[in-house]
Amino acid sequence: MTIDRALIERDVSRLLKRGVAEIIVEEEMLELLRSGRKLRLKEGFDPSFPDIHLGHMVALRKLRQFQEMGHQVVLIVGDWTAQIGDPSGVSVTRPMLTAEQVRSNAETYMQQFFKVVDRGMTEVRWQSEWYGKFTLADVIQLTSKFTVAQMLAREDFSARYSAGRPIAITELLYPLLQAYDSVVVKSDVEFGGTDQKFNFLLGRELQTMLGQRPQQCFMTPLLVGTDGKHKMSKSLGNYIGVAEPPDVMYGKVMSIPDELVMQYFELVTDLPEEELEEFRQQLAGEANPMNMKKRLAREIVAQLHSKADAVEAEAHFARVVQRGEAPADIPVAYAPSDTPDIRRLLKSCGMVGSISEAVRLINQGAVEIDGQKVIGYQLPVKEGSIVRVGKLRWCRVKIDPEKAEKA
Amino acid sequence: MTIDRALIERDVSRLLKRGVAEIIVEEEMLELLRSGRKLRLKEGFDPSFPDIHLGHMVALRKLRQFQEMGHQVVLIVGDWTAQIGDPSGVSVTRPMLTAEQVRSNAETYMQQFFKVVDRGMTEVRWQSEWYGKFTLADVIQLTSKFTVAQMLAREDFSARYSAGRPIAITELLYPLLQAYDSVVVKSDVEFGGTDQKFNFLLGRELQTMLGQRPQQCFMTPLLVGTDGKHKMSKSLGNYIGVAEPPDVMYGKVMSIPDELVMQYFELVTDLPEEELEEFRQQLAGEANPMNMKKRLAREIVAQLHSKADAVEAEAHFARVVQRGEAPADIPVAYAPSDTPDIRRLLKSCGMVGSISEAVRLINQGAVEIDGQKVIGYQLPVKEGSIVRVGKLRWCRVKIDPEKAEKA
Repeated sequence: MTIDRALIERDVSRLLKRGVAEIIVEEEMLELLRSGRKLRLKEGFDPSFPDIHLGHMVALRKLRQFQEMGHQVVLIVGDWTAQIGDPSGVSVTRPMLTAEQVRSNAETYMQQFFKVVDRGMTEVRWQSEWYGKFTLADVIQLTSKFTVAQMLAREDFSARYSAGRPIAITELLYPLLQAYDSVVVKSDVEFGGTDQKFNFLLGRELQTMLGQRPQQCFMTPLLVGTDGKHKMSKSLGNYIGVAEPPDVMYGKVMSIPDELVMQYFELVTDLPEEELEEFRQQLAGEANPMNMKKRLAREIVAQLHSKADAVEAEAHFARVVQRGEAPADIPVAYAPSDTPDIRRLLKSCGMVGSISEAVRLINQGAVEIDGQKVIGYQLPVKEGSIVRVGKLRWCRVKIDPEKAEKA
Repeated sequence: MTIDRALIERDVSRLLKRGVAEIIVEEEMLELLRSGRKLRLKEGFDPSFPDIHLGHMVALRKLRQFQEMGHQVVLIVGDWTAQIGDPSGVSVTRPMLTAEQVRSNAETYMQQFFKVVDRGMTEVRWQSEWYGKFTLADVIQLTSKFTVAQMLAREDFSARYSAGRPIAITELLYPLLQAYDSVVVKSDVEFGGTDQKFNFLLGRELQTMLGQRPQQCFMTPLLVGTDGKHKMSKSLGNYIGVAEPPDVMYGKVMSIPDELVMQYFELVTDLPEEELEEFRQQLAGEANPMNMKKRLAREIVAQLHSKADAVEAEAHFARVVQRGEAPADIPVAYAPSDTPDIRRLLKSCGMVGSISEAVRLINQGAVEIDGQKVIGYQLPVKEGSIVRVGKLRWCRVKIDPEKAEKA
């Protein structure tokens, strides 16, 4: 790599300021960047959770920015640690995945990962490459370097331990294996959320013990989810998945609370700082946050799909959500008769995941048929009736006992 | 095996009464013995400590008694667990042995073991047979079955943990590996001291989890050492080694406090219960305990060496210790001149292990030359002078500068 000092200094400030929660050790990180050396950027993932959402994108976009400076991403498929389950921030021992589940999930993950990160500048490494031949002697060597107290000092472990909740011995191995990954791939910088700090530091420690230069730990902030309260997470249902269709993605971005708009701009878009400053001033003044949010939604859809998709999603949103019209192209729900059980009807066409979800939504008043709120479960419909759940889910009724039977 | 009920019942009472601290589960143990099945008796040892002393013999003699009923001993060479170090009752993390040290120690151990246990009815198994090919996947399987809290509930761990002393994660693996040994060798009964109870119970648990009949745990009492205070242990220096020469063994038995005589008879000799009862009555009366102790010393030397050795050791003891005469056959110490450095002289002929030990013994007044207590370190000797350290160590001086140089 050739060293262009001015370029590096410009990039450094972009890399180390926006979208950063904590860097350990910032001084060393700066030195590394200024050295002009091609850095190895470690990002591991747990194929137990193959779905990437905007929360993950914060770190992935950072990787992409480093790639643009010529650095090398090393993506570690945690196919072994996934069989244990990362205990970070989790309060119960998790069930183990089969090797087959892990493999299929890893593929799904990578399809999404490479929507953001440059595949050409990424080295993909499977843990099985080294853990497949890891012996008991290796385990003994590794586990002898750390104490039980060190592990139980970790916040989540200590909370579980003192509450008397079980921690499998296996779970103590998880951070050690993740640390050893850093040694194997000779990681210069490890990337992830702030909840990974303990594991990252263990990596530094192990590298030092084994005579390597300790990696830098680059921690990105946790993005707040669409509920405006908790960190974005699939299990909380407040997420926007990077693989979701443009319409859904656009609609979900539009649903975030106004206070989050600037955070999203900062963490998941490339809009320059000067422009964001303008937005801030507008928001402090009389500007309608709705327009800002539309801009944000377009940026995000364009980034993960295309500009054309963004334009179309915006039109869809205006028509369906803002003006309340039925979308042009909606799925069909087959009813067995003209007085179907609405709960089953919703379930059969996939508008809800379960009968109990249908019951809940009906009771919340979130279901309409031809513009009338549904009360009770058995109701008359007619051929072509429009059923709507919330603002975004629609279907059109066809009365067809035979197809209803199969659904 | 044919079942001779009367014989079994006689043996059962001998097996399960004398030399037993605790049996888990006694009812099941009885059933097993009455079933007439050939049982697999597991005894593991840690080749970090190759020296067997009378304390270990309590369990080994029990094995021998079971063998006499036709049962099979399975001796497990803990060549893998030794590399970790058994944390049972130990208060610090121990250094690891090399594979070479382990192998050589194991040989030493077995030479002593088969002085008591019948080699022909013993199956020797090295852990490396199964742990040599144990993979990380196996480790994950095994460690997922137990929790950190279960391990830390163990007395020694919990004491260390709450005192803030380090416990390497590796040490949590030790009891799991020992438990897994029971599964591999299909142990019916595991033998050892009461300090092994936790490990034994873990074996039961793991066997049950993996669909095997859980082993019985046969725990023998801890023998008090020659100091009359602490359990016999090499590190406390209060032990009688089974490999020690007849004279030393005899002398050490004679040195135990009178109160221990009956305990030793019970735990390390085969004298029948009726005879022991007589001894008890004699001791309660006017009998001289010295005579009883001589009987004990003869029994033990005869058992571990031969009857002839026992007779000779007794004569040696009477002559050297009781009458204070020099033994017939004592080693030579070569002096460089007729005023040698006594500390070096003692060290060169092996009467002490180090110069500092020599200094300590001289200062304690435990060293004599020709019947005169040694004061100071540089003293005149003559050809044929007798040097004595304590009651049992003797040598004869030869003045020979050349050989003194080499010594």
